[in-house]
Amino acid sequence: MTFCINRENKMTTILITGGAGYIGSHTCVELLNAGFEVVVVDNLSNSKQVALKRVEDITGKKPIFYQADVRDRDALAAIFAQHAIQSVIHFAGLKAVGESVEQPLRYYENNVSGTLTLCQVMAEAGVKSIVFSSSATVYGDPHTVPIKEDFPVGATTNPYGRSKFIVEEILRDLYLADPSWRIALLRYFNPVGAHESGTIGEDPNGIPSNLMPYIAQVAVGRLPFLRAFGGDYPTPDGTGVRDYIHVVDLALGHVAALRYLESHEGLVTVNLGTGRGYSVLDMVRAFAAASGREIPYQIVDRRAGDIASCYADPALAQQLFGWQAQRDVNVMCADSWRWQSQNPQGYES
Amino acid sequence: MTFCINRENKMTTILITGGAGYIGSHTCVELLNAGFEVVVVDNLSNSKQVALKRVEDITGKKPIFYQADVRDRDALAAIFAQHAIQSVIHFAGLKAVGESVEQPLRYYENNVSGTLTLCQVMAEAGVKSIVFSSSATVYGDPHTVPIKEDFPVGATTNPYGRSKFIVEEILRDLYLADPSWRIALLRYFNPVGAHESGTIGEDPNGIPSNLMPYIAQVAVGRLPFLRAFGGDYPTPDGTGVRDYIHVVDLALGHVAALRYLESHEGLVTVNLGTGRGYSVLDMVRAFAAASGREIPYQIVDRRAGDIASCYADPALAQQLFGWQAQRDVNVMCADSWRWQSQNPQGYES
Repeated sequence: MTFCINRENKMTTILITGGAGYIGSHTCVELLNAGFEVVVVDNLSNSKQVALKRVEDITGKKPIFYQADVRDRDALAAIFAQHAIQSVIHFAGLKAVGESVEQPLRYYENNVSGTLTLCQVMAEAGVKSIVFSSSATVYGDPHTVPIKEDFPVGATTNPYGRSKFIVEEILRDLYLADPSWRIALLRYFNPVGAHESGTIGEDPNGIPSNLMPYIAQVAVGRLPFLRAFGGDYPTPDGTGVRDYIHVVDLALGHVAALRYLESHEGLVTVNLGTGRGYSVLDMVRAFAAASGREIPYQIVDRRAGDIASCYADPALAQQLFGWQAQRDVNVMCADSWRWQSQNPQGYES
Repeated sequence: MTFCINRENKMTTILITGGAGYIGSHTCVELLNAGFEVVVVDNLSNSKQVALKRVEDITGKKPIFYQADVRDRDALAAIFAQHAIQSVIHFAGLKAVGESVEQPLRYYENNVSGTLTLCQVMAEAGVKSIVFSSSATVYGDPHTVPIKEDFPVGATTNPYGRSKFIVEEILRDLYLADPSWRIALLRYFNPVGAHESGTIGEDPNGIPSNLMPYIAQVAVGRLPFLRAFGGDYPTPDGTGVRDYIHVVDLALGHVAALRYLESHEGLVTVNLGTGRGYSVLDMVRAFAAASGREIPYQIVDRRAGDIASCYADPALAQQLFGWQAQRDVNVMCADSWRWQSQNPQGYES
């Protein structure tokens, strides 16, 4: 099984669900740059098609796009019939923690039922290679940091996190039932930053629930000040510590995972993080320096379900995939600022 | 909210998914006897429509039947539009542990996606009362017996068990998001027996994976001998100990749960068992006595995923629902034998 050149000497085709989204669009860029043919399925519920136009502008190559939902079995089956897909990267899903608490059925249906439908269509099409977007949230509140992949999982605090854990379990059961599957469960830490061109980036609906887009919107004047949730955590400055990873590094991690699956049957579960933790205030300072803007902030109460400190042990990704994150926090902030300042209203600008 | 007589003075209508199945059909009988109107949705994938004819023969009342799948949103929505349903008892699901290991996607899709679709249609129809068929399997291997509802859960060993646990979590999240739901998660121990008429009972596809139908098929000559999995468990006679509960008691537990939900908002999680454990050999002896037949058996290796001993603390069901199991192991065996001997090939007889 080889992914890059198939028997007819064509480029290998990868299906990217949620490929117009934040991580998806950056992964399209890196896959196209690496010579893969890219088919995107996205329902555009939390993304814009223009992102794929920008991907084309960056790479000079055009991803094939289908506006479809992964829960739509017939639409998926038609796409698999149309294209000689060798592997799937499955980003499509809902991702707002707070919203998941309010709309659990919608979250479980999109994230869990959607994955089940996708996998069934894949099995029917004989495509048994998948890279899944999991999350460090499956670790819950870790006993120690850095977090290794064999730490306890499942003590999730919200439907979003549970949906990620459930899909991990489903894919593990799928592999146990049929060991000819090739599965990479990638547990992301905190993706931030943007492509260096400043033309694609994170464009959340409504008020951002993640730190970096929030800071960026404060810097650009779209929001008045940052609310930092909790100043009394047992961390160096009292604010929460996270492992921020540049989205381009994350995208390259997916390319590395695909190449690993080319030559390895089985299921692997791998952290994608930098191995370094930064506090909220670290990020505020770094972003202020990168942007030359003041970032007013206010420390408010802790947010339910948040934990003190979370960062990866990234050794396994290095060992298995030969991958490690290259872009430091200053690059993350500079690239995030370039995107935000060039697109103050996101893709609507 | 009252279930028995609604404002127009009609009997209250209950939707039973999987109502043609083993527990479903017995619950139809008890609901019809209690004066409820019953609408059954069943895809007949592991049940026979004739069971509902027998329910009618027993009760003199006819359940309304739709051959439909709970994953079929449009079919469900049409049923909710057609009938003034006040509550749902959700039995529909796949239940063979070994099969679930081989076909995990099918199990998760039927059991998890099916429940999500059902709940979404219910929410849209404004029907927010559900009794869910969970299982003692969610407790995994308990540290002690009897098992109380607050014991740890989630350490399930197969996709069937995980699907039950996942649905419990989903329904809990649903209740947290919208506390106007009324939800009873009923954790069944080991249902056995049959209606005293001998006209409805358990009719598994293929070789039974549960003990009682296996014993019954040996007694009636359909299978040559019983294989008892494991004779070296730390139990009085070395064979596994379970809490067998008469299916009619279980059905009455559902009627009691419905009546509880009439007057209580909220979510309750309740064991349905007798509180007594019997070993495999206890059951063989009891069945031999009830049937007057010899039950040849052979003790073979333990089966992966089986545990030594499992029985309920049934106090909460008594406290909340005023329900407790009434039928002892001799009645279970006598009724099971009456069904099996009158219907040696099940409903195909």
